[in-house]
Amino acid sequence: MPTRRIPEEWVSSRPRAERARQVADVLRQQITAGRFVDGMLPDERSLGNQFGASRNAVREALALLVREGVITRRPGVGTTVVRPKYGHGLDRLVGLAETMIGYGTVTNEIRVAETVAELPAPIAERLQVAAETGGVYLERLRWLQGTPLSLDATYLPSDIGPAVLSGDVAGRDVFTLIEATTGHLLGRAEVTVHAITADSDTAALLQVPCGAPLFALERLTYLADGRPVDAESIRIRADRMTFHATMHRGRATAAEQQAQ
Amino acid sequence: MPTRRIPEEWVSSRPRAERARQVADVLRQQITAGRFVDGMLPDERSLGNQFGASRNAVREALALLVREGVITRRPGVGTTVVRPKYGHGLDRLVGLAETMIGYGTVTNEIRVAETVAELPAPIAERLQVAAETGGVYLERLRWLQGTPLSLDATYLPSDIGPAVLSGDVAGRDVFTLIEATTGHLLGRAEVTVHAITADSDTAALLQVPCGAPLFALERLTYLADGRPVDAESIRIRADRMTFHATMHRGRATAAEQQAQ
Repeated sequence: MPTRRIPEEWVSSRPRAERARQVADVLRQQITAGRFVDGMLPDERSLGNQFGASRNAVREALALLVREGVITRRPGVGTTVVRPKYGHGLDRLVGLAETMIGYGTVTNEIRVAETVAELPAPIAERLQVAAETGGVYLERLRWLQGTPLSLDATYLPSDIGPAVLSGDVAGRDVFTLIEATTGHLLGRAEVTVHAITADSDTAALLQVPCGAPLFALERLTYLADGRPVDAESIRIRADRMTFHATMHRGRATAAEQQAQ
Repeated sequence: MPTRRIPEEWVSSRPRAERARQVADVLRQQITAGRFVDGMLPDERSLGNQFGASRNAVREALALLVREGVITRRPGVGTTVVRPKYGHGLDRLVGLAETMIGYGTVTNEIRVAETVAELPAPIAERLQVAAETGGVYLERLRWLQGTPLSLDATYLPSDIGPAVLSGDVAGRDVFTLIEATTGHLLGRAEVTVHAITADSDTAALLQVPCGAPLFALERLTYLADGRPVDAESIRIRADRMTFHATMHRGRATAAEQQAQ
């Protein structure tokens, strides 16, 4: 039988909600790291002992993770990891299908694929083209192993878009199609990550409850020569994906040093 | 009077929810980029013309952004940006106070600051110390300009934690305190970004509605010599902050090329 590792007085001094957050955070980290190899979490008593938390705090922590869609709890079965979250690196520019190699094949349900006579002004500005030159709009629901992972919408300029549309947009990443059709390599992308909740329509498409957390990404991708060619807006199920990055400590700027 | 820029037949062929997403995405991007200098968005009619969207689709797009906490709408006043979102880079390792220089001073409300006799096993493993060596647990609610931005919880090992606690934890980033008290520079951090929704307790602390989107970050920070010293778990208001990164196109691995 596991021994209580943390002094009793420390246990009782904590408000339950705070404790629950703490336990949920550590468990989420372990789940993401693939630590529960058979997908089974320890029972409430063991978790309570491990974290020096009350049974109620453990229950509340598990309820938080259930709501996040990370685990399920069934009487007589226990607490199981729904599915591992896929990690998507933010340092290297790869498409979803490229990232998911090893997990399975990404297929794309094409929802919209059309020529646009005139681009919305803010999109034209991002792509550094005149709105009147038009382009292509492509919206795809992306599936992995029978689960919708993300809803990707993108605008491509008029000299690249049509060639991409005539490629295998159902089976391949737009990135590789751009490189194949232009004969030029991609260089970099500027990404902004938002967290939002799912409206009813998006929830239905991604098969999550209304109000479920989603990532909303803005991604502007450039060819190696610096020309922007792919203005994307991506909604991603946050119960199925995380982003990871390595941050390096640079020299603080003069302003920062002053503020310290 | 602005002219309709997109053919009428294209406008009417789109389901409204899809259209609303599209308009909301472009507006969110413009808001994040600080494009509405006076904080005022154009009226519904102008937005409809700009995007070739129906008035109802524009209204629905604006409703999405209201729910995200990004804009407010008031009769007679119009649609205004609540506050700009702060961008936090994922490439360089800086603390919140360092990042927010230029926006204002970050102050920290210390909620927990205590010595822990024994670390939870998964935390000890992450910090590469024995659980029995104990450490320090610090939880801070971080404020900027009268608004709570994030709730940061961290475990520090026993040879570093107490010295950090005796420093100005209310006024400074833990990063700079670690560097000041150890005399060693930080090297890098491994970050995993989750999107979750706020439980009632966290919502009350961060002053957001229950169910509002939050970022949940796991961040493990290493000294320059490679030793992990700071195991954090951070909840961040997603209506006030975004993450940005530059992704570079590397050479595809052999496995990736095969899959293409």
